[in-house]
Amino acid sequence: MQEKNLRELLAQVQEGNISIDEAVKELKDLPFKDLGFAKVDFHRELRQSHPEVVFCQGKTPEQIREIVKVLAEKSNNILATRADEVAYQAVKEILPTAQYHKLARIVKVNEHKEITGKGTILVVSAGTADLPVAEEAVITAEAFGNKVERLYDVGVAGLHRLLAHLDKLQQARVVIVVAGMEGALASVVGGLVNVPVIAVPTSIGYGASFNGLAALLAMLNSCAAGVGVVNIDNGFGAARLASLINAI
Amino acid sequence: MQEKNLRELLAQVQEGNISIDEAVKELKDLPFKDLGFAKVDFHRELRQSHPEVVFCQGKTPEQIREIVKVLAEKSNNILATRADEVAYQAVKEILPTAQYHKLARIVKVNEHKEITGKGTILVVSAGTADLPVAEEAVITAEAFGNKVERLYDVGVAGLHRLLAHLDKLQQARVVIVVAGMEGALASVVGGLVNVPVIAVPTSIGYGASFNGLAALLAMLNSCAAGVGVVNIDNGFGAARLASLINAI
Amino acid sequence: MQEKNLRELLAQVQEGNISIDEAVKELKDLPFKDLGFAKVDFHRELRQSHPEVVFCQGKTPEQIREIVKVLAEKSNNILATRADEVAYQAVKEILPTAQYHKLARIVKVNEHKEITGKGTILVVSAGTADLPVAEEAVITAEAFGNKVERLYDVGVAGLHRLLAHLDKLQQARVVIVVAGMEGALASVVGGLVNVPVIAVPTSIGYGASFNGLAALLAMLNSCAAGVGVVNIDNGFGAARLASLINAI
Amino acid sequence: MQEKNLRELLAQVQEGNISIDEAVKELKDLPFKDLGFAKVDFHRELRQSHPEVVFCQGKTPEQIREIVKVLAEKSNNILATRADEVAYQAVKEILPTAQYHKLARIVKVNEHKEITGKGTILVVSAGTADLPVAEEAVITAEAFGNKVERLYDVGVAGLHRLLAHLDKLQQARVVIVVAGMEGALASVVGGLVNVPVIAVPTSIGYGASFNGLAALLAMLNSCAAGVGVVNIDNGFGAARLASLINAI
Amino acid sequence: MQEKNLRELLAQVQEGNISIDEAVKELKDLPFKDLGFAKVDFHRELRQSHPEVVFCQGKTPEQIREIVKVLAEKSNNILATRADEVAYQAVKEILPTAQYHKLARIVKVNEHKEITGKGTILVVSAGTADLPVAEEAVITAEAFGNKVERLYDVGVAGLHRLLAHLDKLQQARVVIVVAGMEGALASVVGGLVNVPVIAVPTSIGYGASFNGLAALLAMLNSCAAGVGVVNIDNGFGAARLASLINAI
Amino acid sequence: MQEKNLRELLAQVQEGNISIDEAVKELKDLPFKDLGFAKVDFHRELRQSHPEVVFCQGKTPEQIREIVKVLAEKSNNILATRADEVAYQAVKEILPTAQYHKLARIVKVNEHKEITGKGTILVVSAGTADLPVAEEAVITAEAFGNKVERLYDVGVAGLHRLLAHLDKLQQARVVIVVAGMEGALASVVGGLVNVPVIAVPTSIGYGASFNGLAALLAMLNSCAAGVGVVNIDNGFGAARLASLINAI
Amino acid sequence: MQEKNLRELLAQVQEGNISIDEAVKELKDLPFKDLGFAKVDFHRELRQSHPEVVFCQGKTPEQIREIVKVLAEKSNNILATRADEVAYQAVKEILPTAQYHKLARIVKVNEHKEITGKGTILVVSAGTADLPVAEEAVITAEAFGNKVERLYDVGVAGLHRLLAHLDKLQQARVVIVVAGMEGALASVVGGLVNVPVIAVPTSIGYGASFNGLAALLAMLNSCAAGVGVVNIDNGFGAARLASLINAI
Amino acid sequence: MQEKNLRELLAQVQEGNISIDEAVKELKDLPFKDLGFAKVDFHRELRQSHPEVVFCQGKTPEQIREIVKVLAEKSNNILATRADEVAYQAVKEILPTAQYHKLARIVKVNEHKEITGKGTILVVSAGTADLPVAEEAVITAEAFGNKVERLYDVGVAGLHRLLAHLDKLQQARVVIVVAGMEGALASVVGGLVNVPVIAVPTSIGYGASFNGLAALLAMLNSCAAGVGVVNIDNGFGAARLASLINAI
Repeated sequence: MQEKNLRELLAQVQEGNISIDEAVKELKDLPFKDLGFAKVDFHRELRQSHPEVVFCQGKTPEQIREIVKVLAEKSNNILATRADEVAYQAVKEILPTAQYHKLARIVKVNEHKEITGKGTILVVSAGTADLPVAEEAVITAEAFGNKVERLYDVGVAGLHRLLAHLDKLQQARVVIVVAGMEGALASVVGGLVNVPVIAVPTSIGYGASFNGLAALLAMLNSCAAGVGVVNIDNGFGAARLASLINAI
Repeated sequence: MQEKNLRELLAQVQEGNISIDEAVKELKDLPFKDLGFAKVDFHRELRQSHPEVVFCQGKTPEQIREIVKVLAEKSNNILATRADEVAYQAVKEILPTAQYHKLARIVKVNEHKEITGKGTILVVSAGTADLPVAEEAVITAEAFGNKVERLYDVGVAGLHRLLAHLDKLQQARVVIVVAGMEGALASVVGGLVNVPVIAVPTSIGYGASFNGLAALLAMLNSCAAGVGVVNIDNGFGAARLASLINAI
Repeated sequence: MQEKNLRELLAQVQEGNISIDEAVKELKDLPFKDLGFAKVDFHRELRQSHPEVVFCQGKTPEQIREIVKVLAEKSNNILATRADEVAYQAVKEILPTAQYHKLARIVKVNEHKEITGKGTILVVSAGTADLPVAEEAVITAEAFGNKVERLYDVGVAGLHRLLAHLDKLQQARVVIVVAGMEGALASVVGGLVNVPVIAVPTSIGYGASFNGLAALLAMLNSCAAGVGVVNIDNGFGAARLASLINAI
Repeated sequence: MQEKNLRELLAQVQEGNISIDEAVKELKDLPFKDLGFAKVDFHRELRQSHPEVVFCQGKTPEQIREIVKVLAEKSNNILATRADEVAYQAVKEILPTAQYHKLARIVKVNEHKEITGKGTILVVSAGTADLPVAEEAVITAEAFGNKVERLYDVGVAGLHRLLAHLDKLQQARVVIVVAGMEGALASVVGGLVNVPVIAVPTSIGYGASFNGLAALLAMLNSCAAGVGVVNIDNGFGAARLASLINAI
Repeated sequence: MQEKNLRELLAQVQEGNISIDEAVKELKDLPFKDLGFAKVDFHRELRQSHPEVVFCQGKTPEQIREIVKVLAEKSNNILATRADEVAYQAVKEILPTAQYHKLARIVKVNEHKEITGKGTILVVSAGTADLPVAEEAVITAEAFGNKVERLYDVGVAGLHRLLAHLDKLQQARVVIVVAGMEGALASVVGGLVNVPVIAVPTSIGYGASFNGLAALLAMLNSCAAGVGVVNIDNGFGAARLASLINAI
Repeated sequence: MQEKNLRELLAQVQEGNISIDEAVKELKDLPFKDLGFAKVDFHRELRQSHPEVVFCQGKTPEQIREIVKVLAEKSNNILATRADEVAYQAVKEILPTAQYHKLARIVKVNEHKEITGKGTILVVSAGTADLPVAEEAVITAEAFGNKVERLYDVGVAGLHRLLAHLDKLQQARVVIVVAGMEGALASVVGGLVNVPVIAVPTSIGYGASFNGLAALLAMLNSCAAGVGVVNIDNGFGAARLASLINAI
Repeated sequence: MQEKNLRELLAQVQEGNISIDEAVKELKDLPFKDLGFAKVDFHRELRQSHPEVVFCQGKTPEQIREIVKVLAEKSNNILATRADEVAYQAVKEILPTAQYHKLARIVKVNEHKEITGKGTILVVSAGTADLPVAEEAVITAEAFGNKVERLYDVGVAGLHRLLAHLDKLQQARVVIVVAGMEGALASVVGGLVNVPVIAVPTSIGYGASFNGLAALLAMLNSCAAGVGVVNIDNGFGAARLASLINAI
Repeated sequence: MQEKNLRELLAQVQEGNISIDEAVKELKDLPFKDLGFAKVDFHRELRQSHPEVVFCQGKTPEQIREIVKVLAEKSNNILATRADEVAYQAVKEILPTAQYHKLARIVKVNEHKEITGKGTILVVSAGTADLPVAEEAVITAEAFGNKVERLYDVGVAGLHRLLAHLDKLQQARVVIVVAGMEGALASVVGGLVNVPVIAVPTSIGYGASFNGLAALLAMLNSCAAGVGVVNIDNGFGAARLASLINAI
């Protein structure tokens, strides 16, 4: 559309219908006006294998339905995160084939099958209570075209459980570590592997965990270099970052 | 310069030297490439009566000297804020006419004389120790072309001192309130005037003032509507915002 | 009433019924006693085009009903903010024509029609979840007699969406920026306009957003000068400050 | 009881039935063993006009009932604070004459009528939402034998409302200031009176009020000397301190 | 002066030189204009036995000298708090008889001798490191005309030291408790006396004391009712509040 | 199992079926692979008298049921902590003899009877509201084979109640102190005994207790040396640590 | 002394010189008056093998000298902690044989030689920068009569360094873990041993370590049960607690 | 060495000199004992092209010298970070060819020349004051074998400066964003690229920046997915993570 306008303008210049002065005046606004379409072009290609994502938390069923309806027009690959049962129903009204990953709180539509990521993303988690966040990472990473493996319930208080799977740790291309409480798992894993580690603090804990602050600070201060941290409970963000790394 | 390039490109289109396809390709990158000059054009006019500003804190004398040298090439109206004696000497080496407002910690070069602001900016402060921040606001606002009045040492513990100057308060077009400790002055002034109030918490206080946090929180929670808050000790920012309001 | 008392006192002085000493004694208490009416006089004029405002949150339906009843006696221009469905019903019992702006959580009575603000207030928001706060700002600003425009869903992660509307940004007289999460929008907008920017952090986010603290701190530290910040989720306060600026 | 034991021991010494060595051995443990009764004696006198107090919050109806039953055996003057409707019913089962002060969330039994405090305690509050805390202070102070006056809804944004009652302020022997949001009222009142001021921050507010933290910090940093602060929402504690002062 | 103006105005009314309308107009501004002098009158009497106070911290020797010079004109009873050796010299230049209480960091001029407080203020402190704050309270309270006693080094870890002086505790009219670290002393003392307790948290401690925050929070949460808290290290404020109580 | 593999490997070496090179290759991975069984061996002995523990908070009844089912296969000594009525029912479905300690929020199965701890663990608590945490410590310590005594409702505001039981305090081998609000009890007890004190801050309190932060900080800053602190409300952890000490 | 008084009183009762009523009156104050000596008696025995301790930080050389002089009269076993070179000189003036442990910042006089602790205390530390705190623990524990071993530089980022010394870990009777940054070492060690673990967070780190807060929170939230935490950098307190445990 | 021991043990098994039972007993300790050498083997290969790193901050020149001496024995590729002039001299004494990158505060020895990273790491920074952290990232990433480009002084307040270099942004394989104050640059960059973004908050700012907390929180809450955050001022850690990504 806007490219069409640009072509018409240039045609008019070519044909001498408008002066260069007039064209300059018109084009000086171009930087901002046209940014949108340039951006879209730039992104379109990349997005072909990626799902469109809706963050459901804090949205009403009406809002979710409406957003999904719009997205469904341009994509058949949709991820609705932080979705409860009600959000699931809202998506299903629009897209009846939607599937609900309850533990991960994700609704997925027309799941992306092709593996485009080049290696394996390993999702490691400390305790049972961290599973929703870990699963959010797993389902998201899969939806973004990655091969994903799980290594769960390997908190540092029972170090042998983690060390028993050292091979798994060392075969991954990217490791996502999900841990609440004192978040020590990120440092321990960071010391055992030589690949990027993405640490996800969870809000699991009580008292002086301050809803994940303890784990967050611990991960930011990790004595193992090579650890990047995302927001508390942000399994989705960790998976997105891991996907970008695994896509390289 | 870049406009010149654009004209040349259009001239080549006009003259049929390049095809529309080639011109489109060239112009599609324009949004980002040309943004710089567009921005500069847009800003140039506004800046004519405005000083160039250097934030000196944390910069070495060498860095300050170098930056001032560059600015001095395009402007004879320069403000160096958070400047100590050493910073002053650095500026003076480049611009010997620079004046030092010690209390305000500002070095000013070739002070802007013309008043362009439409009304008076009143700077109100609570205690003697708040003066450096208040003066930073005063000197900055003057440098940006405003008529400024001072109303100092009118903390709420002696309410009569403030109320004795109600006329001054009510004649201002914008009021900047500078206060540390409990920062109550912003709420009291906000309840007495019908113009925008810009509140500047200061780090004055000790113990549970937590370096200005107490005043900051108080001002953000002001029961008087119509109060906008800037960062702790940010007299400069308050003056900039007041200037924008007074320029309307 | 009190003015009447004052006149009577002066008449008695004029008529020699009381001595100057006695009158002085009486009048020395005047400053405090009469302050109320003086204040009211001073404000009455200003208030004529302004709505009376009730902050409903934390009030029982009975309290809201009672307050609205009192206000309704002196004004037919009432705004009830932070109002849920129950609060709306309470207002409606007293004022059956009250309208409910559900998203903005505002009940408005006898909406003020006349535009007294001199320019346009632009309300810019980052994400869908920020809409309640943005709409609170919009409805409030309109109720205070301003022309308001909206620019929604222009978060910085998709910069092109914001830049596509640069004209709108640059035509506003005051800009209110509403953003949660990292609150970066305030800085970006602040760098694009030359008018006052009022930043409203929202509590949208999770984990390390700490209920809006992240956005609040970001906005207070904005690298763009000329940004004033109000409390988290305080769309009303931002609109009040914008109204005062736009009334200049 | 224990005094009886002591007398018996001394009688045995007097009568030569036990040696001084044995008595010393017995008495060396006395400091700790007898501390209880000594303390009780010391306090009994003071307590005669004071109610026994139960803090209901976080207690089950069963626990409240049991505690009240025990207290009712030694006193007919009981105060149950932070009591909801359910707590009220629990008290009433034991003491049918109990009265419920709903706003103050206090259940009072056999209200103490005699005024023993020497002057008036004035309870000043900023906004309507602060009333529960203010009333908790009022009812408590009355129950402890004080004459109490109220000065409500005199927040600093409308200073004239407060100043109109300067006489009331200056006639009090102790002033309790109850305020949420920015808590500025404590400083303003502290500057207007020459008697002890007890400041009670309330959790009223939102966003950066952080559940009363803003008001708490403001009051601790009050620029008016002579202000003592109690915990957030602690109307009871303020009234207890005021009672002690008023009892001097 | 202003009273003279008022008399002249009334005389003109009496003499019929100005109309009642004109006089009303003039007097309507009176509330604010005259507030100052009314206040001063009100306070003068009270201040006669009170020292003028300068808070030296953060002031330059020049500023201190200038302020002391002004105060010395109207009073020969001056207290300079938070004064270091340099501040002392500054005061001494103006007032050669000034004495320096080094530990208390107070410079006192022409010490007030008369005891006007009605009972004894007891200053209790936990550890040796709390002495500067305790002494600030002692010297201040004495300067405000109180009989003061000290009970030092009675931290709760050695309870016997405190209990050995129970008589001293119970003979005081007001108790000031100065403690850092965990600040438990305030609760223990509050449980042993039946008079007002003013708690001063100190910044003594390290690590998780967070510069006095631990003691501050502990004191605000004291399980002993009747404890009022002042800012961290604010021995002066505690003494002022104690003076007001002791003056009743 | 893994030991069996190791034996088989060694047997093959012994029998010459595999070369030393091959065995080394196999065994080099052993450190990590075999860690698990080594650990289990090491722990098995210790665990014989210890219950298996499930932390129920944040787990669904299904998850609890499943975990208990697994544990029940290897142990008849199970502790389910932070268990509500629903969790209790879930455990009971698997193990019908499970008993519910409601106040302690613990479900215990086949309670361990034998006392293996060498001395008495004394659990001291400040107020009635701290009982759930105190009881969690008591029930846990008993389940781990300790003799436990209780000393409840001995908050420092009524010091005589605590001192009346000095003998109990001084006969314990380990003392657990459970206190909310200002947490001063830990320091006072720490000063009275010469055995290890484990301090458990509780979330009891309101306002500036910040959900137990005040008590936590106070306990960490205890002026009585020899106090170890566990997480807020962590009665279980305190009992575990006390058990380890009492097992020495 | 006071026992003598008690004996005299009882003798007078025995001899009929004073009545039982008079003796009761005298003895009723005993609880508090005599507490001191009772306490001292109780403690004397315990203290015989323990050093007297001076915390030097924040004390002037004069204060240290004076305190040491007093202590030297009753004990030849003195520990001065947090001592710099200046403090060392102050101690040495009084006690020329004092030795300075520079890294541990401890001055020790007449070092206690006899080992009274029953097992070994192992001090484990994460990084080189944690050594001052670790050494403070070591020197203190030794001074209190314990056999101490060191296991340094075994941070979790290089897990093999720690695991290589598992025997050392498992032979200790008490383990002190000293770690800054993310403090994960406490959890890992806590999972490897079956003895009490005392965790000491250090202020080592930068940025989001917030002077040891990150390590402190991590340790409080340790997923390994049986970990008690002391204040940030409190090597002394950890050693005191370990001594008490090792003395059992 | 240890492999030799293992071989000897197996040889003895093979030769029947020790029983399988004895060998099992010996090997059961192997997991922990041998972990060290296994780990070293595993890492040796990786480390060949990597520098050994010393974190100098908080270390004495003696400590630095000693550590460098040890490292110099096994590697001629050493990086000393957070090094001031004194630290530089300490390194130089051992390794005279050491070079000092003053702005980056890094001492580099025998700089690694070969580029092993597969793409370009782009380091983007907001302001001049962020340069030390940005340069720390640059020098570190180069030392780890990466091609690095700089894009400095492109803070979001002047968006055109950033957008003018969109090509640079989009050609990078990994982007490190270094920003203080409100840290908005990370979100803006994250929205413009499709590669991993590593965000480094800096402590640049004042007041409510709280030493980098504002930027840290902003980056953790970035509305652009795919952003990993490291500790405040941790340019080194960001470069390490970027290296790991670029090494894939």
